[in-house]
Amino acid sequence: MRLRAPVSLQTEECIGCHIIATPGIVKDWQSSRHSRIVPAQALKKKILARRVSSDSIPEVLSKVAVGCYECHGQNTDNHADSFEHNGHTINVVVSPVDCSTCHTVEARQFSGSKKAMAYRNLVDNPLYMTLADSILGHKTWVDGELTAAVASSNALRETCLGCHGTRVEVRGMKTIDTDLLGEIQVPDLSGWPNVGVGRVNPDGSFGSCTACHPRHSFSIEIARKPYTCAQCHVEPDTPAWDVYKESKHGNIYLSKKEEWDFDSVPWVLGEDFTAPTCSVCHNSLITNPDGDLLAERTHDFGSRLWVRLFSLIYSHPQPRKGDVTIIRNADGLPLPTTFAGDPATEYLIDEADQKRRKEKMTAVCGGCHSTDWYTGHFAKMDRTIEEVDRMILTATQVMQSAWDAGVADGSNPFGEAIEKRWALQWLFYANSIKYSSAMTGAPDYATFKNGWWEMSRNLEEMKEMIEQKKSTQYPVPSSQ
Amino acid sequence: MRLRAPVSLQTEECIGCHIIATPGIVKDWQSSRHSRIVPAQALKKKILARRVSSDSIPEVLSKVAVGCYECHGQNTDNHADSFEHNGHTINVVVSPVDCSTCHTVEARQFSGSKKAMAYRNLVDNPLYMTLADSILGHKTWVDGELTAAVASSNALRETCLGCHGTRVEVRGMKTIDTDLLGEIQVPDLSGWPNVGVGRVNPDGSFGSCTACHPRHSFSIEIARKPYTCAQCHVEPDTPAWDVYKESKHGNIYLSKKEEWDFDSVPWVLGEDFTAPTCSVCHNSLITNPDGDLLAERTHDFGSRLWVRLFSLIYSHPQPRKGDVTIIRNADGLPLPTTFAGDPATEYLIDEADQKRRKEKMTAVCGGCHSTDWYTGHFAKMDRTIEEVDRMILTATQVMQSAWDAGVADGSNPFGEAIEKRWALQWLFYANSIKYSSAMTGAPDYATFKNGWWEMSRNLEEMKEMIEQKKSTQYPVPSSQ
Amino acid sequence: MRLRAPVSLQTEECIGCHIIATPGIVKDWQSSRHSRIVPAQALKKKILARRVSSDSIPEVLSKVAVGCYECHGQNTDNHADSFEHNGHTINVVVSPVDCSTCHTVEARQFSGSKKAMAYRNLVDNPLYMTLADSILGHKTWVDGELTAAVASSNALRETCLGCHGTRVEVRGMKTIDTDLLGEIQVPDLSGWPNVGVGRVNPDGSFGSCTACHPRHSFSIEIARKPYTCAQCHVEPDTPAWDVYKESKHGNIYLSKKEEWDFDSVPWVLGEDFTAPTCSVCHNSLITNPDGDLLAERTHDFGSRLWVRLFSLIYSHPQPRKGDVTIIRNADGLPLPTTFAGDPATEYLIDEADQKRRKEKMTAVCGGCHSTDWYTGHFAKMDRTIEEVDRMILTATQVMQSAWDAGVADGSNPFGEAIEKRWALQWLFYANSIKYSSAMTGAPDYATFKNGWWEMSRNLEEMKEMIEQKKSTQYPVPSSQ
Repeated sequence: MRLRAPVSLQTEECIGCHIIATPGIVKDWQSSRHSRIVPAQALKKKILARRVSSDSIPEVLSKVAVGCYECHGQNTDNHADSFEHNGHTINVVVSPVDCSTCHTVEARQFSGSKKAMAYRNLVDNPLYMTLADSILGHKTWVDGELTAAVASSNALRETCLGCHGTRVEVRGMKTIDTDLLGEIQVPDLSGWPNVGVGRVNPDGSFGSCTACHPRHSFSIEIARKPYTCAQCHVEPDTPAWDVYKESKHGNIYLSKKEEWDFDSVPWVLGEDFTAPTCSVCHNSLITNPDGDLLAERTHDFGSRLWVRLFSLIYSHPQPRKGDVTIIRNADGLPLPTTFAGDPATEYLIDEADQKRRKEKMTAVCGGCHSTDWYTGHFAKMDRTIEEVDRMILTATQVMQSAWDAGVADGSNPFGEAIEKRWALQWLFYANSIKYSSAMTGAPDYATFKNGWWEMSRNLEEMKEMIEQKKSTQYPVPSSQ
Repeated sequence: MRLRAPVSLQTEECIGCHIIATPGIVKDWQSSRHSRIVPAQALKKKILARRVSSDSIPEVLSKVAVGCYECHGQNTDNHADSFEHNGHTINVVVSPVDCSTCHTVEARQFSGSKKAMAYRNLVDNPLYMTLADSILGHKTWVDGELTAAVASSNALRETCLGCHGTRVEVRGMKTIDTDLLGEIQVPDLSGWPNVGVGRVNPDGSFGSCTACHPRHSFSIEIARKPYTCAQCHVEPDTPAWDVYKESKHGNIYLSKKEEWDFDSVPWVLGEDFTAPTCSVCHNSLITNPDGDLLAERTHDFGSRLWVRLFSLIYSHPQPRKGDVTIIRNADGLPLPTTFAGDPATEYLIDEADQKRRKEKMTAVCGGCHSTDWYTGHFAKMDRTIEEVDRMILTATQVMQSAWDAGVADGSNPFGEAIEKRWALQWLFYANSIKYSSAMTGAPDYATFKNGWWEMSRNLEEMKEMIEQKKSTQYPVPSSQ
Repeated sequence: MRLRAPVSLQTEECIGCHIIATPGIVKDWQSSRHSRIVPAQALKKKILARRVSSDSIPEVLSKVAVGCYECHGQNTDNHADSFEHNGHTINVVVSPVDCSTCHTVEARQFSGSKKAMAYRNLVDNPLYMTLADSILGHKTWVDGELTAAVASSNALRETCLGCHGTRVEVRGMKTIDTDLLGEIQVPDLSGWPNVGVGRVNPDGSFGSCTACHPRHSFSIEIARKPYTCAQCHVEPDTPAWDVYKESKHGNIYLSKKEEWDFDSVPWVLGEDFTAPTCSVCHNSLITNPDGDLLAERTHDFGSRLWVRLFSLIYSHPQPRKGDVTIIRNADGLPLPTTFAGDPATEYLIDEADQKRRKEKMTAVCGGCHSTDWYTGHFAKMDRTIEEVDRMILTATQVMQSAWDAGVADGSNPFGEAIEKRWALQWLFYANSIKYSSAMTGAPDYATFKNGWWEMSRNLEEMKEMIEQKKSTQYPVPSSQ
């Protein structure tokens, strides 16, 4: 039997109804650590075994389980979505600020990450929104032309913002009809439900912890398993999971995971797991079997990364800050590289910082691999990034020649068939190869599936599209 | 040790040889509940815990395990595939009618479903067969033209009928050479082996229970796991599994399934499982932890569905009946909507029925989610269906303009390259987005992978195909 | 507690440092059978339960665990990569020759297989390298033309040679900086790290056992799980795993694998597993529950195969030898069939051998399936191969007509957009259908996903590409 910690009177009331109204939520919470240990106990663990990072926790919260009211009743004054519900003021949306009561360090790290900014980094970048509109804008067929509209908020929410997060705003109150209580008043929220990682919350904060620690079990186990990452980091644009599962690491994970311990803190290399998952390399606190620290926990998910594999439109050093809306390349575009490949250096981390971050990552690699092995690995990756970026450059030159010849209209660089071919080169194909290289996995992703095969074929088809367009627009003189 | 129930004399004889001839079958059966409990005992369970639904079971069957002979020896008079085998008359193919001896309700529900009609709904629809022929018909290259044949029965069996089921007919008897007995006589069956869900059996019945309860373990566990559904409901046309595995529900399933109980009847939300699989939402008997019914078991797999997401060529209310060959749209075509999007209303369920069915589904959602959450979810889905169907309409208009201009020949609407582009819009891309919306999962399927990205790109490429064809056929006058 | 076998003094020294330097390796080895049993004991097992196949093992090795030094210290005289490391001469790369000390039979079988020759069979085939160059060669855009280079060694290593294996050569010694020892001297290896199955090792041997028995656990369990095969045998060219996971066999594997025993030797059908994985059918030693042999172990992975499904450019009988570089078709090309489909018979196994091999495979099928079932299955497969190969022939005829008309330049048959379309037909689409047929799985791969749908669509688009090219090159006279 799992023991349960004492619960607050408020939470007891919540459970009294919700065990009937939504028993799945209650059961999920009962399976959680939140229901079994009170913060005061959690604070007493040794430092490397701690799951709470705040130095102190308010008295009223520290002696009871972290229940319904302890989370939904936090900071209600700052929540535009707070409302009266059966005698209690609660918030619909629990935000990272609420979680930070106990998990201060994680919330702070996260708040500076690109993940926390995922909504703004997309929506506040006019070039990315041009791309989004060219994909999601409704198209009509009038007189042999396709006319395009801007993306609807619904389409954005179902696509980009499914991962990036929505802006959740309170439009007022509304009446809904419930089985248990009949009609009740609840806040009427836009962009809701949504658990995207960069969600803008009604308390003004950014992010959604439940994106990775889902629902009411708040599980570290689920967050450490790659299926969580695989909700968003999948092909064709960011094929991290796809590549991982076909790598040696992924093979070992899939073959042996039932014997591993995904709940242990600290997470011990060689004992709790024998091959990395996403979280091992990118953010978990890892020790060796002797208890020595290999990597500190971080919720700034890019902080062990030096190069940004993701092509925009070439790879480049990681941005200095999580907020990348400020970046302007030498051509004034909100991109970290120019179309010719020059990085927007002042917004990107310098070599010293790259080196520091690489050392953080390779400290994990070194848990199982010799220095020569991982050095060879990353040298290979560097060379691959360079080769692939050159193939992007060629595609950009082909594209530019089409713009120059007037067979494509560059005013919207994503609006025509050939322009989407160009985007395929960097957004899908280049990334597939780079991710495959980074995990020494999935040679098929590097080769035939969205990799080199497609990069070459795409160039050849782009060339033919241009020739065809030229022939259509400027027919060969009849005298020939 | 698992106890075994007493077996009939006939089954004992079967096992005597088959433990040598095909030990895997025998072992599989020995692992099954059929081998461990006799029907008379099964009938004594409390109603929600029962796995047999017949009110009474023939005396001769009720006291012995459900063994080889009990299934293969049923209703032999009605089976064209019955034959003498070592002194017993048995059938090769066990049909839903045979299973209905103990599982009456399930067989009856199933017999009225689209699944049971899966063979006929395809093969008896001339338009769908035109599509099948345009895909599967052998093509020859003669004088710069592709000439097409109709699909071979073999090609159909390997593709569409792999899921939909074949028509299994007895062509006579044949002699085969076996290791154990040397030459023996067995029925010579067409379309065999096949375990497609709508198989037409030699006893005239429709369906194959083994499609989901596979082989000789007849496992409820396997049927409840999504891998069973994933044999057929996969991308690019019906990406249910693909979307599910990248949804939050799928993430939790993949992370926690080893702790769940997939064999329990009734299936208790919050205890036996903490996130839905396909069968939770679509057909299983679900109770809350107090034992109250949340959803009744159904083997009419569409009966908790109101809207048919699957685009034919637009979404529409579910058909009234499992037999959809009777449907005719306003243009006389055997389709539930016209090319312009008008539903064939008289063949589709009405609003009251839609509401009833939606309530059945949301009763399951409500086990874990607040009313506001799932209401918001389905509102989003409705809007997405509408937006996606408008993108299908645009593609249809582009297609129509090609037919009107004579650059494509609409007599077979699926026979040319541009026509297959049109089909991509509704058959692959629209479905991907709709399924993704329905499970709030897999933003990548809605966005880049077979989703909005492809819908837009496809329209742009269709436009260029038309322009190219026009230019080829009607060259610009030389004076220009 | 798992007992550990006594270790040699040398291995004890290795572990003394490496438990600090690379604890993950040590822990992995400690989890292995190599650490728990000495060869002398392993030799005493009954013949079907043995995991070592050498008749005798050198005295010095037989009484200690198979530790670091026992593998890395083998045959150092023959290893160009041997070097002094803290007082011991060791090799970086452990090769199949080293493993053969205990696993003679496996090493010998493997050495004759296509897998062992995977590097050479690719790199020493000029036609395949033309294909590789056309995919991987860097392309530049000069005056409206794409100019192509040959593939870089880095690109080859990241793609084809990721699975096929690299040639690992010693370029000299180099100094590296390690955490524990500071600067040390190690061999400077080209093509390293790499664990491709046909790797050419510094001792001159071919192959990499760790490709399937990964890292330092040398696990038979991992090798038997399909995730190992799925590192290489995946879509789009060889979609074995993709098809398997959507087959009935794959469904049962994914649903029930936690209850199976993947470590047992012999591997007992019906007890240790209830549906096949890749290794059951292709190479494992399988017995029935009575202990009778159903299939002998083989590490010549093609030896239970008669037909080679993989289209080059049509299916054909398996090659006689693992070294296929010697094959020449009737047109003098290094291909097992001509462009017209004629097999290079003298290099391929004859009918008697095909029959023998098919009997080996069907002995496994017969463990669970009746003679009629699997006979019907393979008859279906034969017909499908024939039908699909005819669709390849049509594509080849379309391609030939383009070469004949001068709208494509056949001097490099893979260098242009339309030529890659032709390759799609046999390399991706045909294989998808054939693999799907072979496993009676994944009707979607046979139908819509890389199957018949794509084969037909591809022919139609190839036709249009030719028409477009003709119209561009030879404009219609202006008088029309």
